[in-house]
Amino acid sequence: MEELRKVADDIVNLSIQGATNIAIEGVKAVAAYTQRLPATMSEEDFLKKFADARHIIRETRPTEPAMQNGLTKLRYDVEHHLGTCVGDLQEILRTSSMEYTELLKSTKKRIIEIGADLIQDGYTVMTHCHSSLSSATIIKAFQDGKDIKAISTETRPRYQGRKTALELVGAGIPTTQVVDSAMRWAMRKMNVDMIIIGMDAITSLGTVINKIGSRLLALAAKESDIPLFVSGSLLKFDSDTMIGKRTIIEQRAVEEITKDWPQRPEGLRVLNPAFESVSREYIDGLICESGIFPPEHVSKLVHESYPFIVE
Amino acid sequence: MEELRKVADDIVNLSIQGATNIAIEGVKAVAAYTQRLPATMSEEDFLKKFADARHIIRETRPTEPAMQNGLTKLRYDVEHHLGTCVGDLQEILRTSSMEYTELLKSTKKRIIEIGADLIQDGYTVMTHCHSSLSSATIIKAFQDGKDIKAISTETRPRYQGRKTALELVGAGIPTTQVVDSAMRWAMRKMNVDMIIIGMDAITSLGTVINKIGSRLLALAAKESDIPLFVSGSLLKFDSDTMIGKRTIIEQRAVEEITKDWPQRPEGLRVLNPAFESVSREYIDGLICESGIFPPEHVSKLVHESYPFIVE
Amino acid sequence: MEELRKVADDIVNLSIQGATNIAIEGVKAVAAYTQRLPATMSEEDFLKKFADARHIIRETRPTEPAMQNGLTKLRYDVEHHLGTCVGDLQEILRTSSMEYTELLKSTKKRIIEIGADLIQDGYTVMTHCHSSLSSATIIKAFQDGKDIKAISTETRPRYQGRKTALELVGAGIPTTQVVDSAMRWAMRKMNVDMIIIGMDAITSLGTVINKIGSRLLALAAKESDIPLFVSGSLLKFDSDTMIGKRTIIEQRAVEEITKDWPQRPEGLRVLNPAFESVSREYIDGLICESGIFPPEHVSKLVHESYPFIVE
Amino acid sequence: MEELRKVADDIVNLSIQGATNIAIEGVKAVAAYTQRLPATMSEEDFLKKFADARHIIRETRPTEPAMQNGLTKLRYDVEHHLGTCVGDLQEILRTSSMEYTELLKSTKKRIIEIGADLIQDGYTVMTHCHSSLSSATIIKAFQDGKDIKAISTETRPRYQGRKTALELVGAGIPTTQVVDSAMRWAMRKMNVDMIIIGMDAITSLGTVINKIGSRLLALAAKESDIPLFVSGSLLKFDSDTMIGKRTIIEQRAVEEITKDWPQRPEGLRVLNPAFESVSREYIDGLICESGIFPPEHVSKLVHESYPFIVE
Amino acid sequence: MEELRKVADDIVNLSIQGATNIAIEGVKAVAAYTQRLPATMSEEDFLKKFADARHIIRETRPTEPAMQNGLTKLRYDVEHHLGTCVGDLQEILRTSSMEYTELLKSTKKRIIEIGADLIQDGYTVMTHCHSSLSSATIIKAFQDGKDIKAISTETRPRYQGRKTALELVGAGIPTTQVVDSAMRWAMRKMNVDMIIIGMDAITSLGTVINKIGSRLLALAAKESDIPLFVSGSLLKFDSDTMIGKRTIIEQRAVEEITKDWPQRPEGLRVLNPAFESVSREYIDGLICESGIFPPEHVSKLVHESYPFIVE
Amino acid sequence: MEELRKVADDIVNLSIQGATNIAIEGVKAVAAYTQRLPATMSEEDFLKKFADARHIIRETRPTEPAMQNGLTKLRYDVEHHLGTCVGDLQEILRTSSMEYTELLKSTKKRIIEIGADLIQDGYTVMTHCHSSLSSATIIKAFQDGKDIKAISTETRPRYQGRKTALELVGAGIPTTQVVDSAMRWAMRKMNVDMIIIGMDAITSLGTVINKIGSRLLALAAKESDIPLFVSGSLLKFDSDTMIGKRTIIEQRAVEEITKDWPQRPEGLRVLNPAFESVSREYIDGLICESGIFPPEHVSKLVHESYPFIVE
Repeated sequence: MEELRKVADDIVNLSIQGATNIAIEGVKAVAAYTQRLPATMSEEDFLKKFADARHIIRETRPTEPAMQNGLTKLRYDVEHHLGTCVGDLQEILRTSSMEYTELLKSTKKRIIEIGADLIQDGYTVMTHCHSSLSSATIIKAFQDGKDIKAISTETRPRYQGRKTALELVGAGIPTTQVVDSAMRWAMRKMNVDMIIIGMDAITSLGTVINKIGSRLLALAAKESDIPLFVSGSLLKFDSDTMIGKRTIIEQRAVEEITKDWPQRPEGLRVLNPAFESVSREYIDGLICESGIFPPEHVSKLVHESYPFIVE
Repeated sequence: MEELRKVADDIVNLSIQGATNIAIEGVKAVAAYTQRLPATMSEEDFLKKFADARHIIRETRPTEPAMQNGLTKLRYDVEHHLGTCVGDLQEILRTSSMEYTELLKSTKKRIIEIGADLIQDGYTVMTHCHSSLSSATIIKAFQDGKDIKAISTETRPRYQGRKTALELVGAGIPTTQVVDSAMRWAMRKMNVDMIIIGMDAITSLGTVINKIGSRLLALAAKESDIPLFVSGSLLKFDSDTMIGKRTIIEQRAVEEITKDWPQRPEGLRVLNPAFESVSREYIDGLICESGIFPPEHVSKLVHESYPFIVE
Repeated sequence: MEELRKVADDIVNLSIQGATNIAIEGVKAVAAYTQRLPATMSEEDFLKKFADARHIIRETRPTEPAMQNGLTKLRYDVEHHLGTCVGDLQEILRTSSMEYTELLKSTKKRIIEIGADLIQDGYTVMTHCHSSLSSATIIKAFQDGKDIKAISTETRPRYQGRKTALELVGAGIPTTQVVDSAMRWAMRKMNVDMIIIGMDAITSLGTVINKIGSRLLALAAKESDIPLFVSGSLLKFDSDTMIGKRTIIEQRAVEEITKDWPQRPEGLRVLNPAFESVSREYIDGLICESGIFPPEHVSKLVHESYPFIVE
Repeated sequence: MEELRKVADDIVNLSIQGATNIAIEGVKAVAAYTQRLPATMSEEDFLKKFADARHIIRETRPTEPAMQNGLTKLRYDVEHHLGTCVGDLQEILRTSSMEYTELLKSTKKRIIEIGADLIQDGYTVMTHCHSSLSSATIIKAFQDGKDIKAISTETRPRYQGRKTALELVGAGIPTTQVVDSAMRWAMRKMNVDMIIIGMDAITSLGTVINKIGSRLLALAAKESDIPLFVSGSLLKFDSDTMIGKRTIIEQRAVEEITKDWPQRPEGLRVLNPAFESVSREYIDGLICESGIFPPEHVSKLVHESYPFIVE
Repeated sequence: MEELRKVADDIVNLSIQGATNIAIEGVKAVAAYTQRLPATMSEEDFLKKFADARHIIRETRPTEPAMQNGLTKLRYDVEHHLGTCVGDLQEILRTSSMEYTELLKSTKKRIIEIGADLIQDGYTVMTHCHSSLSSATIIKAFQDGKDIKAISTETRPRYQGRKTALELVGAGIPTTQVVDSAMRWAMRKMNVDMIIIGMDAITSLGTVINKIGSRLLALAAKESDIPLFVSGSLLKFDSDTMIGKRTIIEQRAVEEITKDWPQRPEGLRVLNPAFESVSREYIDGLICESGIFPPEHVSKLVHESYPFIVE
Repeated sequence: MEELRKVADDIVNLSIQGATNIAIEGVKAVAAYTQRLPATMSEEDFLKKFADARHIIRETRPTEPAMQNGLTKLRYDVEHHLGTCVGDLQEILRTSSMEYTELLKSTKKRIIEIGADLIQDGYTVMTHCHSSLSSATIIKAFQDGKDIKAISTETRPRYQGRKTALELVGAGIPTTQVVDSAMRWAMRKMNVDMIIIGMDAITSLGTVINKIGSRLLALAAKESDIPLFVSGSLLKFDSDTMIGKRTIIEQRAVEEITKDWPQRPEGLRVLNPAFESVSREYIDGLICESGIFPPEHVSKLVHESYPFIVE
């Protein structure tokens, strides 16, 4: 249980970062924990402890669908094998955990390939914040021999867009960086042909949750009728939204904004939302492991690929 | 001529800042220069030197209408008194220069009063960047006894929004600050009732030129049908736009963006536009010294108040 | 047959009212009629009489999908058991009828729960006309401890909105009522966070048919980007729309409008449409027994839950 | 003073109704009052009493621009003749008052003629509430020999639309009436070619204040790109809006809504706004005594025709 | 192989025209070719030659989904019977080819029936270019006894709209023809109730590819909120778009445009795109063999009806 | 009178073409006719004959504002000199006629200069039909040394766009031509930066009447937020629209469309509208002799420059 709590702490204090990493480590930690339980305990006790472990990990990030769905997969696989011995359940959990890790990797590869095909020769592609999928997609298109240019926004307050710029320039792509508030200006000035962003979660209404600023990008794209694509795995589907739960927008530490501002007046309220929502009407297509589809399709696609999420 | 050049240099190297200050100092410098010329010189020579002086100041900021229009006023007043002696022209220039300074101040006061009346009790008002007019307007409404709240954006890369926050909090107004990319999120989260921004210039089409990010604010305001007002003096009218000249968007130093980013990759192109345009369809009203009007009216209003700008 | 005709008459003359009640009573009447037939008759005769009975009930309300779909379920269940004796078919019809009644009730409960979860603490929720689902949903959210306010429109000419107001005030919810034409004004004045309306039918294009005035509400919601949800059972799916049939908009008696207007001029034409359509582009989400989804999904959801409607 | 107060009371208690009537009677009452003052009093005293009288009438309807502007005209005419004897001022006020009455009538006639020309043969024209100008315009077009049809809404809670229907049917025009919430349905069903409504006031931004429901009509017109015209005199210009004052939306008695609803629950809040605003972007043209113009022109037109309102 | 190449040539040089004809002839040619192969050859060799034949036909029109999907069906049917003798495979291909021809015909009939039901009595229906489905649908509605009118555009440069006019007038329908650039004018002038166009392909995003000018029609329809329907078989689904491939817009011969223009200046670049895309947001409904659905549903519908296209 | 009728006939049968030419010749013909009258006739008779002459010319083109306004100028100038001898009036008419011709030329030159300044280096400019102003403007920008590209549409049925292409290619500008229905496709494909079209008339609402297809161009421009400018002289203001008269859309001969279509079916109705309207909301700016302004300003600009049109 200590090792499990260690992983939980690492997730909370950001030693483990990124939706995919968190999902992998969280799921692995739960599976590993169950391996350490005595195979001689009763199924009931085992299930109880398994549930406790899931709860501990789940609470580290209540709105990280990729991790939530991984934990759901563990439970789902176990529930389909009840009545066998605890040893078998342990084996099943070990396999299930590995399968999920594998899934996260294979879907990523697939999405990059599909997205890269969407980018045409001669295109100027814009992105926002840092999304490993979006960066990799643009880079793959470039490596496929297409003559493309890129624009990246710096993404205050944590400047994840700088990481994007490093990756794109590192790959040899002519890249331009602007401050976030210049996104509309840059889009027009440089005749952007297509926008591609990542996602942190997607709801049953096809609403995408992504880095703060994404809705502004969507508004500007709509104004000039520039296609906006979101790339991300269906494993980021937040199935609770089907039954009325809202995806909570995480508030980050105020210090991220104020740390280099010593004269900040007392009494000033600072809000630092990490994400915002982009409604389906702004999204031309969702690039996922099943292909490219309108975002409103997401629940159907999840149902077909991942019955453990949507039965 | 040396003193004149000194002022010109101060404007170029930003020792003198702010559209109004630049206008006052530039116009004063030209008038002062002409005072120092011998009253005994010929009118022709005097006019020649007067034109040279205007040219030097004008070139420090080719797209700062308040200054351009001040220089135009000097010329206009002189042209209406040709044929008298040089001493008279000097007197006229001294008066004209003082009048312009006075004009800049009185219009400001008037705009603040009108704008403050627009803000209703109970309102949450949003602004962007720092505009001394917008800040003063919000503060006046608050001092008039209205219970209001304010939102300000930080405005990367130079954080002028922090100055706004200092002023508003200093006046006792409950104020919230967010990063620029959170402007749409904050607008909805806090039920903003009205947006008020300043302007750097306004064209004959009623297009407002203002701090980068203003168009994004306008797009978000339009999406939720929140009224957007622009406050500024008609002296910022860019009359060259009537005859097809475009207002040039100033590019600021790249270092403003990259100075705290040592690992900036070589080869990365960084663009740092200072302003962007907001088309008239996004502007509910222009708050100016003549009152509150649709922005498309601007040339008519200028014509009525300032024949030296639009005859 | 007499009893059947009695029910048919009661539906026609509005003694039986409300889509759900009509569905329950109509389906029960057909099933009851078949129970009274001699078990000794031939299957062919039985089916003939069963069809006649369905026809009689169906014609009372050609566009009440919940009833139509109930009759379809009876037929569907019988058709899957042909070749057994008439007694068995009677038993099947009895069960089928009870199942349908049960279905109508259980879906209602489910929709209320999901919808209530969508309503957040602090929300002001607006509705139109009277929808037992919408009222119950708002009340449930309030009973779950959320601090909410409500707005209801009176809904000329039959003032069903008064029933809504009675229910909401009765439950203790701070409620405001306005005339129908003030719906946009109230929406803005009171900072409505969310709109929830019921539905009478939904087509294969995701178009919702609901009380007259609903499209105006949708237009006003769109103008201010306020989310509009429709709550209703998938049993209201009008499957004929899949093959090009239009949902007919019922015209109600003119007297509803003119009864308190003695000086109504002769020759004046009065139209009294009961319903109007709301296209899918205006609907943020459909709250149904399967969860919350974009309205364009409806045929897929019906297919999954009710193969007797869409195979 | 008593007679003056009598008129003031009649306006307050609605014995005098309609913007034009109120303006005529209010202005006449002030002028008449001044006639009764002794011609021997000092100009200062006379002006004081004149101001008191204006104040009493003004306060009966703080937002009835046609009356406010009439009072302004009296003051304006007097101010341009100061320094003559009180008897002369009395004469001036008598003339000024008559001129204003005449103005109200002649502008009306002119607007009707212009508006009628806009209506084409074969048109179906829609209106809302009762506007004597709109009715007269439609009737004139019909009397000019054009084959037209009309639609009128009943306009809860006071059913002014019934008056419209009476007038139109009385003139022989094929007219259809619907409840307010059916306005969009009727517009589409009957292929409306043009909408014409009256106005209670117009602001310096070209925003029209008209009967509640007008904004809904505007939204529906915009959705189907049906031209919406507003007809009204420039004398309804609310000049205070130029300097930041808002036009106040009058709240009418709640009983208008609840009087035929005995079971109205205690605790229900009922709001009964009389008017709402229609922004300039929804108005194709303003039909006024100067002709047909975009509504944003209004301040220029007022300035040209009525310097006593906008100098 | 010669006969196969003959068909390929006929397709390339337009001796065989029309998406359906091309599909039938191409598929038949491949099937026929395989019938002529010796039944004694090895399965491996047979499959090789079968693949070559498909390749030859496929390349004649890389973006004609109805043909592509027919070839896919042949392959799919063969792949599900591997391991039997070559003679059996030949039989399977013969059957598969006939089935596909049958499918193309039966879907057409079904779509016409559904579409005709959508057209209401009294409607004015507009179409663009020539689509045998759209023409047949309008004619069927007319033959069903509905009183309808039609508008057709001439469709430069090949005037396919004249064929449409001939068919509609031939059927007795009052028909109006205008030049392409008058499509918006005609739509308003004649109060069009509904637009129906065909399609050449549809993508996984629900984007329809149709004759150049279709997007303009869609823009004009949107402006006036006139419903736009696209009728076409799901067999025109371009499944490659699911994985990021773009549908290529065919450029036709420049001579089509310039042949009657002898003075065409040298150096003038002429572009003659045959098609353009209509995004799903402009399409009210897709009329296909499965019924009427939002276009974004297309991949789901294809999956259900044609597993050989989308498994 | 014969010569006058000759000119009238030449205008009717299109021997005299183009709004400017028609205006020049019509005005000259009336003036010339009055020169030939005996100077000894009475003023009354002279005015009568002058009115007859105007009437004859006016009726040749009831909706050609440039000509109408020229005739108005003649009348206006005469009316301001009544009471002198007929010889003087003849002289005045001669001068007035020459002034108008001069005006038409000088405004043209001015508009071209202003418009050319609007076109930036590197721009791709699109136009529609043939407008001598638009062509000259694009050519001037090119001759000013700017690197620009152009797109022209062919403009069925009379192919005036070919004339445009000839002029642009003749001037050395890289030019692309497409059929009218490809205008949206070309706009996107070639990243058009700006659109410039001419105008035949402009109304008091700022609605521009221009060649059929212009509204489609405007819709496509709006969709992608590409600025659309209209260039034309204020002398094309249709002042009758101020008082409710509609600009009549001329219907051209059907043969223009059908002449190369021998199999045209009997009974087919063909409509050939020459123009259509573009509402002010689609027009970014009007380029006229007064400068660049929002189109809604037009009546104010006409009033300032041409009191004989709008007093």
